[in-house]
Amino acid sequence: MREVGVGIIGFGTVGAGVADGLLRGAALIARRCGLSVALRGVADLDIARDRGVAVPRELLTTDALALATRPDVDVVVELIGGTGVADEVIRAALNAGKSVVTANKKLLAERGAALFALARERGADLYFGASVGGGIPIVRALRDGLVANEIRAIHGILNGTCNYILTRMAREGGAFDDVLADAQRLGYAEANPSLDIDGYDTAHKICILASLAYGVSVPLGDVRVQGIRGLDPVDVRYAGELGYVIKLLAVCKEREGRLEVRVNPTLVPKEHTLAAVGDVFNAVMVEGSMTGDTLYYGKGAGREATASAVISDIVSVARHIAVGAPRAAEPLPPLAGSAYTLLPAEESVSRFYIRLMVREACGMVGRFATILGDHGVSIFAASQHEATEAQRAEGYVPVVILTQPARAGDIAAALTEITEQGIVRSMPFHLCIL
Amino acid sequence: MREVGVGIIGFGTVGAGVADGLLRGAALIARRCGLSVALRGVADLDIARDRGVAVPRELLTTDALALATRPDVDVVVELIGGTGVADEVIRAALNAGKSVVTANKKLLAERGAALFALARERGADLYFGASVGGGIPIVRALRDGLVANEIRAIHGILNGTCNYILTRMAREGGAFDDVLADAQRLGYAEANPSLDIDGYDTAHKICILASLAYGVSVPLGDVRVQGIRGLDPVDVRYAGELGYVIKLLAVCKEREGRLEVRVNPTLVPKEHTLAAVGDVFNAVMVEGSMTGDTLYYGKGAGREATASAVISDIVSVARHIAVGAPRAAEPLPPLAGSAYTLLPAEESVSRFYIRLMVREACGMVGRFATILGDHGVSIFAASQHEATEAQRAEGYVPVVILTQPARAGDIAAALTEITEQGIVRSMPFHLCIL
Repeated sequence: MREVGVGIIGFGTVGAGVADGLLRGAALIARRCGLSVALRGVADLDIARDRGVAVPRELLTTDALALATRPDVDVVVELIGGTGVADEVIRAALNAGKSVVTANKKLLAERGAALFALARERGADLYFGASVGGGIPIVRALRDGLVANEIRAIHGILNGTCNYILTRMAREGGAFDDVLADAQRLGYAEANPSLDIDGYDTAHKICILASLAYGVSVPLGDVRVQGIRGLDPVDVRYAGELGYVIKLLAVCKEREGRLEVRVNPTLVPKEHTLAAVGDVFNAVMVEGSMTGDTLYYGKGAGREATASAVISDIVSVARHIAVGAPRAAEPLPPLAGSAYTLLPAEESVSRFYIRLMVREACGMVGRFATILGDHGVSIFAASQHEATEAQRAEGYVPVVILTQPARAGDIAAALTEITEQGIVRSMPFHLCIL
Repeated sequence: MREVGVGIIGFGTVGAGVADGLLRGAALIARRCGLSVALRGVADLDIARDRGVAVPRELLTTDALALATRPDVDVVVELIGGTGVADEVIRAALNAGKSVVTANKKLLAERGAALFALARERGADLYFGASVGGGIPIVRALRDGLVANEIRAIHGILNGTCNYILTRMAREGGAFDDVLADAQRLGYAEANPSLDIDGYDTAHKICILASLAYGVSVPLGDVRVQGIRGLDPVDVRYAGELGYVIKLLAVCKEREGRLEVRVNPTLVPKEHTLAAVGDVFNAVMVEGSMTGDTLYYGKGAGREATASAVISDIVSVARHIAVGAPRAAEPLPPLAGSAYTLLPAEESVSRFYIRLMVREACGMVGRFATILGDHGVSIFAASQHEATEAQRAEGYVPVVILTQPARAGDIAAALTEITEQGIVRSMPFHLCIL
């Protein structure tokens, strides 16, 4: 049986999970694939700390670059994260002809095209299944299972922290800051939660999925990103009363040859499959030209789930090495320079949820309805909510309207006009509806 | 670019879909994979009928065996179905060194082990992604994405016809025969619906998934099969009132080294993800040792969805051929002779739903509760339902009980004793609870 050597760079949570999975799972992998996957070493700056994994001492090293280029290492697994040393290690490994497995979504989203070009040049594999969706094999589904499909749209719940916060806000009606603090206390949110709650982690992931689906390199700057920070519980409540839950959705779709990639809090109808995805779970719905909608659901993070995805990639790469065929004509990630046309933000079409504080005076509702109509926006449903005492004292009442599908640009123009005409207290708040 | 030749055997619904997909999708596949997949021919007994696909006349042939062994055909796609000619064609192709793609679940479930052995002997691929779950890449998820996981359990809704009937019975409360007749009228059920409603289509599919998950060949005879034929709407109603929906579930799980494979109508809690899978949709939940639960959902049948799965297999096989590495150390389906221990039916443990017609006499409920207790069965919930006039005249009242987890053997023994003691009108009806 051909032995394939693996070096792990980064002995953090996921690194320890992968080492553990490889050591425990060796017999299973050998039985299933006829492959012997052997752990040759684990590199980390700190090799003294107990990681709770029985990795033999002699396999530990502090020299990442040496491990990544050792002759008996065939596959280099980069689990440091970030764009510094990780980039250096991956380049060194690829230049030494090693195949690479990484879970580094930030690096891929920011410099993926160059790294894929280097891998191709060196005839090596660069796998990244753990970068999106943790244990959910969504990258494989796009690369292999749906390869015959034009991808019409991807809708994903890709960040467990945000989904946990939104699930609790919907269930308990709590304020954003309180639920966030509780999530931090319970270990579901980082001390610095910005990457998650401001939507950038989700944006990195949808960049990767968009690249796979459309064969183009989508830089982070082309993604419109709105996070969930400071989401008002009143919107969670109104959405619930109207039959919706608010989810942080990553959306990627093609419309007449133009690509739309965005991340934003979105009202999802309660009967939609994505509405049922609660707590820290992730799910991705992919609309293929032949399959129609398919959905993939599971744990999007965590040591074991992520390690499962990393090991699955190690096995795929090892198979190619074992038969002497690395980079076995897989559907390839895009190279730098592949071009596409981005849909301008204002051309994005969806239904909208709009919450306005309307001046309590005769005819005001009629006036803003007319302005919306002038901008081509039709109202689907409207409801006036009970004003708080403070609101009543100020002379404003909260009104929520749901629109028919409309251009985002038309919505923005209409809301600006409504605001300028003094019909509302301040610029109305709006969200997309799925 | 390496050209890989494809021959399709069987020009029915799926065959036409695959031909159409290959002709239309050639450019997409070339762009994604750097592969040229060329349709060399389509064989069918009837090549005169218009299939609504623009296959050039000269590609049509009535000689399946000749097409399957032609030198310019690298991949043979078997879409005839059944175990006669299909078997012959696949053997001829494999013997000629061709790789084979098939959607034939019956053939695989009944003779898969021998065919996989032949493929291995000939160094050819035998792919079968379309045999389970239509457009849902569940076979790939088990072979690749979850390769690092011991599979703890698989629960699947694998038959669209049954799920359609059960969804309508739950929604409308109709009788089984009426809903079946309507499904037949609408094209959701065959004129002879036995294979679907008696559970055998589902059984074929769970055989294949069990084989993949556990690396053993599970013959159909080892699957305990109960279909949905004649399901009483009263059970659908009572289940609904108790917070459950009835689904035809395929179950495969390992318990202390023993394998349980069964198909039966099962009460699924309404808040469970599988409960939301309605109409003709399929879904498979896989519990992996590292991933925890992952779920795969989509269209389980239909021309386009199935063709998507077939073409995805063609592309995988073509990749191996293009790099000169067929059978590229994929996780392999099991060969004949791989052994496992089957869990005896009576050892199966689950919660149970039991509906009894209890003799209307003082102390009867206490007596059957005592008998259940004597057999180690604890009651989780019980409710007495209003008797119909006929029932009242006969002196019986309907009672439904839900048990705590219990051995199937204990349930059977208890129900037999209850019946023999004359506490109930006839042997009580029972179903598993997920």
